[in-house]
Amino acid sequence: MAVDLSYPEHVQDLVTRTEAFVRGEVLPLEDAHRGDIAAAGGDAARATLQAAAKAAGVFAPHAPVEYGGQGLGMADRAPVFEAAGYSLFGPVALNIAAPDEGNVHMLAHIADDEQKRRFLAPLAAGDVRSAFAMTEPAPGAGADPNALTTRAEKVSGGWKINGRKHFITGADGAGFFIIMARTFGEPGQRGGATMFLAPAASGGLKVGRHIDTLDKSMIGGHCEVDFEDLFVPDSAVLGEVDQGFAYAQVRLGPARMTHVMRWLGAARRGHDTAVRYVAAREGFGSKLGDLGMIQKMVADNEIDIAATRALLVRACWELDQGSHAADATSIAKTFAAEAIFRIVDRSVQMCGGLGVSEDLPLARLSREVRPFRIYDGPSEVHRWAIAKRAIGAARKAAAARGVAR
Amino acid sequence: MAVDLSYPEHVQDLVTRTEAFVRGEVLPLEDAHRGDIAAAGGDAARATLQAAAKAAGVFAPHAPVEYGGQGLGMADRAPVFEAAGYSLFGPVALNIAAPDEGNVHMLAHIADDEQKRRFLAPLAAGDVRSAFAMTEPAPGAGADPNALTTRAEKVSGGWKINGRKHFITGADGAGFFIIMARTFGEPGQRGGATMFLAPAASGGLKVGRHIDTLDKSMIGGHCEVDFEDLFVPDSAVLGEVDQGFAYAQVRLGPARMTHVMRWLGAARRGHDTAVRYVAAREGFGSKLGDLGMIQKMVADNEIDIAATRALLVRACWELDQGSHAADATSIAKTFAAEAIFRIVDRSVQMCGGLGVSEDLPLARLSREVRPFRIYDGPSEVHRWAIAKRAIGAARKAAAARGVAR
Amino acid sequence: MAVDLSYPEHVQDLVTRTEAFVRGEVLPLEDAHRGDIAAAGGDAARATLQAAAKAAGVFAPHAPVEYGGQGLGMADRAPVFEAAGYSLFGPVALNIAAPDEGNVHMLAHIADDEQKRRFLAPLAAGDVRSAFAMTEPAPGAGADPNALTTRAEKVSGGWKINGRKHFITGADGAGFFIIMARTFGEPGQRGGATMFLAPAASGGLKVGRHIDTLDKSMIGGHCEVDFEDLFVPDSAVLGEVDQGFAYAQVRLGPARMTHVMRWLGAARRGHDTAVRYVAAREGFGSKLGDLGMIQKMVADNEIDIAATRALLVRACWELDQGSHAADATSIAKTFAAEAIFRIVDRSVQMCGGLGVSEDLPLARLSREVRPFRIYDGPSEVHRWAIAKRAIGAARKAAAARGVAR
Amino acid sequence: MAVDLSYPEHVQDLVTRTEAFVRGEVLPLEDAHRGDIAAAGGDAARATLQAAAKAAGVFAPHAPVEYGGQGLGMADRAPVFEAAGYSLFGPVALNIAAPDEGNVHMLAHIADDEQKRRFLAPLAAGDVRSAFAMTEPAPGAGADPNALTTRAEKVSGGWKINGRKHFITGADGAGFFIIMARTFGEPGQRGGATMFLAPAASGGLKVGRHIDTLDKSMIGGHCEVDFEDLFVPDSAVLGEVDQGFAYAQVRLGPARMTHVMRWLGAARRGHDTAVRYVAAREGFGSKLGDLGMIQKMVADNEIDIAATRALLVRACWELDQGSHAADATSIAKTFAAEAIFRIVDRSVQMCGGLGVSEDLPLARLSREVRPFRIYDGPSEVHRWAIAKRAIGAARKAAAARGVAR
Repeated sequence: MAVDLSYPEHVQDLVTRTEAFVRGEVLPLEDAHRGDIAAAGGDAARATLQAAAKAAGVFAPHAPVEYGGQGLGMADRAPVFEAAGYSLFGPVALNIAAPDEGNVHMLAHIADDEQKRRFLAPLAAGDVRSAFAMTEPAPGAGADPNALTTRAEKVSGGWKINGRKHFITGADGAGFFIIMARTFGEPGQRGGATMFLAPAASGGLKVGRHIDTLDKSMIGGHCEVDFEDLFVPDSAVLGEVDQGFAYAQVRLGPARMTHVMRWLGAARRGHDTAVRYVAAREGFGSKLGDLGMIQKMVADNEIDIAATRALLVRACWELDQGSHAADATSIAKTFAAEAIFRIVDRSVQMCGGLGVSEDLPLARLSREVRPFRIYDGPSEVHRWAIAKRAIGAARKAAAARGVAR
Repeated sequence: MAVDLSYPEHVQDLVTRTEAFVRGEVLPLEDAHRGDIAAAGGDAARATLQAAAKAAGVFAPHAPVEYGGQGLGMADRAPVFEAAGYSLFGPVALNIAAPDEGNVHMLAHIADDEQKRRFLAPLAAGDVRSAFAMTEPAPGAGADPNALTTRAEKVSGGWKINGRKHFITGADGAGFFIIMARTFGEPGQRGGATMFLAPAASGGLKVGRHIDTLDKSMIGGHCEVDFEDLFVPDSAVLGEVDQGFAYAQVRLGPARMTHVMRWLGAARRGHDTAVRYVAAREGFGSKLGDLGMIQKMVADNEIDIAATRALLVRACWELDQGSHAADATSIAKTFAAEAIFRIVDRSVQMCGGLGVSEDLPLARLSREVRPFRIYDGPSEVHRWAIAKRAIGAARKAAAARGVAR
Repeated sequence: MAVDLSYPEHVQDLVTRTEAFVRGEVLPLEDAHRGDIAAAGGDAARATLQAAAKAAGVFAPHAPVEYGGQGLGMADRAPVFEAAGYSLFGPVALNIAAPDEGNVHMLAHIADDEQKRRFLAPLAAGDVRSAFAMTEPAPGAGADPNALTTRAEKVSGGWKINGRKHFITGADGAGFFIIMARTFGEPGQRGGATMFLAPAASGGLKVGRHIDTLDKSMIGGHCEVDFEDLFVPDSAVLGEVDQGFAYAQVRLGPARMTHVMRWLGAARRGHDTAVRYVAAREGFGSKLGDLGMIQKMVADNEIDIAATRALLVRACWELDQGSHAADATSIAKTFAAEAIFRIVDRSVQMCGGLGVSEDLPLARLSREVRPFRIYDGPSEVHRWAIAKRAIGAARKAAAARGVAR
Repeated sequence: MAVDLSYPEHVQDLVTRTEAFVRGEVLPLEDAHRGDIAAAGGDAARATLQAAAKAAGVFAPHAPVEYGGQGLGMADRAPVFEAAGYSLFGPVALNIAAPDEGNVHMLAHIADDEQKRRFLAPLAAGDVRSAFAMTEPAPGAGADPNALTTRAEKVSGGWKINGRKHFITGADGAGFFIIMARTFGEPGQRGGATMFLAPAASGGLKVGRHIDTLDKSMIGGHCEVDFEDLFVPDSAVLGEVDQGFAYAQVRLGPARMTHVMRWLGAARRGHDTAVRYVAAREGFGSKLGDLGMIQKMVADNEIDIAATRALLVRACWELDQGSHAADATSIAKTFAAEAIFRIVDRSVQMCGGLGVSEDLPLARLSREVRPFRIYDGPSEVHRWAIAKRAIGAARKAAAARGVAR
């Protein structure tokens, strides 16, 4: 019953071990392959890294204990995930990369026992990967989920799904898909979405081309996926019919925050790289790190790191209290995505020509972090939601005061 | 032993009562006099407001219980001070305005019993005001305290002080001064400062002109003060001789944070004013609050408020753990001073012509918050300190690795 | 027939003489009264300053030669007005302050001979001041001129005007008003406005309270003005009936640019003050001007000054070619208003405590320049207009390509 | 003798033809190979593109007429180079890519007749490429040219050069090198540099690895180059011995500006792509381009484009007057490099997921433009130079006034 920002000892210990593991066993692989997970071997590299993480006792910090995980809450995940994110391959190693991590979280909350056994258990163990099939090409569901066009039609014993998704992270090689499809209403209307579980091997589910993007560290690419009369049985419904958007909220808030945790680790690596560089490098008759304009960049990075962490802790604590924390997670996500970009961009700038080269990890980090300002809700959409709530509250208060305006 | 961001019930209760008190009894006086405390009656207004605060049970939340205060720690002060700061006159009403609040804090930590009886007790009770005489005109101690030129010379039974200070807040009407003077070394050298307590009525202490500044809400002005052979007895030494800079640190970290708390309250009032305005006002065929560029400003304000609060909580918690929290308070102060300015500036912009007029409190708030980016350390000095620590740590780590660079 | 950015010799000469005049005869008066024109004597001070400007041969550079002016085009005005704006009182001295300067410009373009004789001649000579009565309180014409509610009703031999205006600059003491009133359509509709000329002494025209604002340098205040059955004869119609919005455009583009010229001069004074300060002042073991973070602020000011000037030249040249230059003036105004604010704000920051005090002109300049981001179109309205044109052009081009989208 | 911002008819005509050529013949190749010039065929693609440019009459607008060029001055180059830069491959097609374009400029100014015949003529004709070997790895010449370590030692009949360069653009495949080497003084000292011309085939000149960087559009890579007892005859000295830094200035100012021209074209393509996208795409119940936050980004792009162009025109005009334009080119380069980055970054953001994908040119443009904030002087170095001049001028003026400070 008083402010406390300390972490339990077992969490602190896990952070320490995760840091050591990442520096010792993960960063070398990332650097050898310039952060390109496909070049590093894709799922084979993943298997090796996950075995090492298990050996180091740092595997699956987020997964429920009964599924082999360490059962950490959101606030406790923050420093561990940040330590993992210090390498672009760290999250894969710990089995906390997107989208698997968010899917574990959602399945743990919504799936029934049989679904847990069949999908959650192997996912938590790292035996399979998964994909979350939500985003659609125009004019479908993008930043605006209400535009959902993929449809599931009730048929005897199950559902028949038709539609096209794109930017489906991890689709290539995923063992199963969580599919968001419309079971009610028309595109543009709120509500009426349902989530379905479908093995990748299902007939009518086709993973298409990889959409090449700035980032290369996510295993399985960002793919186009088509559903052509994909049949799934009634038991494939995740949670209840027509409740898909509500369930997506269960996934979204925490997933936003774990993204922040991981990318904050990456940004911190960028910052550390730059600080080491300017601490040592000479120029203009002094060390670069003794020049005021460089010091300004270092300090701005430190401020951005501290503010991101502080907002993250706040949002995670609210989530841990059982709140949806819609405001706190939108605020933390928006600030963090922009701060993380700034941190890496300043780090590039501090290192000059080397900063834009592959001789340092900074060029790669600058590519990797850019998309975060767009996915999981572009900054503009979050700002719109934040403002709507604030202005709506003001209107409600004005109405309550009986003020005619 | 786990993250907890909730406040104890008695603190929540005090916040609620402070909010009600400020809206009911303080804001009307502020608005009637456009935030000009001198115009509102100066010390007479202060006496009235403090009596009301005592009646409302919200007086002196920071002062030690044995001196009539409520003994709150730093983290618990944050929401209470923010609630007080919602009015520019709120801090005066609760007796938590600068510099008195910081002086209470420091005297409680450093003064001996007799000094506490003579200086702390009446200050905590609101019977007198005080001033902290540190800043000097060029080439003396400004942003760089080491430049201290005011000297105290040992004489029989005490000390003789000579020098000039300026921007001494609250000097006009203060009951006593805490004076920082050099007792060792030369201007430009670290160390060698001592703090002295001197009643305002002392011979040789002369309060000069008020330096007019953008802000008008601080009682007693920002004054020039001259010491001409000011004699103080040995018992006037606060703490130990030559330890003045160390004691200043005791005061500085917390004082920075209480500034943030108070100004955050003021910024929040600006934001609330603007949100109410755009929620109701028509323009361009819709409510202003439904236009995207306005929503962006509202959201950016919400983000800045949340980030300021989050950094504040962090720094206060560190202070409550007994740390100097030099980094955390520098980071929180720098971010906050700039964020608070942005919040008020956006609020002005949202209200258009009315925003720059005295018909709303925004023009006045924009003047009041500007100096905070300068006093208690300009942003540039804090950034320099933050960067020096980060770069220094990198050099130490490099040396420890035995890496020749 | 090739890019040329040089000024004619007579313009360069006028700039030099204006600079000397402003430094020698105007700045001392401004500084003695802290930029408060009312405190300096209002219209009496104006008469003195204008007599001095006439004696120095720098009076009315913008007015037509036949009305005693120097007949400069827009591009040639830029460096002269900037030189005048170096003092907050400079524009009044040269008779190029808002709103008179814009009114001279408009009357020269639209008024008939009799109107010129009666209104333009004494205005150009500085014998009277004028006001432009356009802006209205909510829900009337503010940033959105289409909301115009003041009405002029046709009556025998003239018009009867009813309505309320506010923020009417220079209203108190103006010799005559140019009034924008609706002669057709309803509030919210485009078009249907007419401009009328009315002597201040007309019955039914009442100048109300001054709305106090951050700025104090504009003579005659920003006032509320009421029209209650104000009768004006048919000969009072400026230009043609129902063409008021079109005429406002004639005034608006150039008026925006002359605002930029004047405020750029003010910003440059702020910058010069700060650069002189940091060039000389010691701190942290060196001159402030040798510290990187200070140098960054100095350079950013230089960049903002150069970019403002460059955009200004472009827009003025377009205006001189006879274009409305809607895009170029919106772009230059928006950039300039924000850049000028940044320049002054950085200058304040560079001077520390003195920067927010009245010991330097910076605190005052920071108050004066803030409203420019709001009047003559808030930045948000200009951005909206700029974007609408760009997006509209893209749509037109797509349609022309026959692309169905 | 008055401001004129119009272009001569032959320049306007060349701009129109260049635009048509780039859209018709260059963009398709760029898009087919995602802006990777090596993937597009490297020097073979270059030959094809240049032949097409010659056929279209748009080749070599910058080269002296006597060497087959069109002899445009700096101001006239601006719109032509911008039109070429609209495609990443456009500058190669017109033979105005870095570093060849700058080398043509410098050779035309400094080379003797024999050097012009041997090096300038084939370079202007596109028969060979060239490299400018200036930048060195730490602790050599980077942002700070005075740190130059490569040495040329006088030997009989010529000079012997030893040293290492890196980030030498276009080195792989270049026909000859312009080498900056120290002929006097020690690293860290100003002065004492000489430029030498050396065919790529010279013994002792070794082009090493390509340093992979974010950009892929520059032919011949950014390479390491070693000089090991490289002998060059006395006739290889470009200009006079020990005057290398002065000659570098001849190249630097114009080269900065032509970089700005080209990258402004690239930024404009990004902007056009985004505006087309938001003009057509639906979301949140309207077209994206009708949402205020999107409109803000569009307007900010328009402002940045206009300001970049305006500063460019200014600097080019000064260069055309024979000035070194050190201030104007530093200001224009610094503003432009940051503005161009912002323009592309906002364009990415407006296009959401597609913005970070290779389905649009934006992801690629975001990689390409980032390094410009670093090469040709990082923004920090330019700001330092700009500030030094401003502060130095203030000191000189203070000294002239005889004011002791």
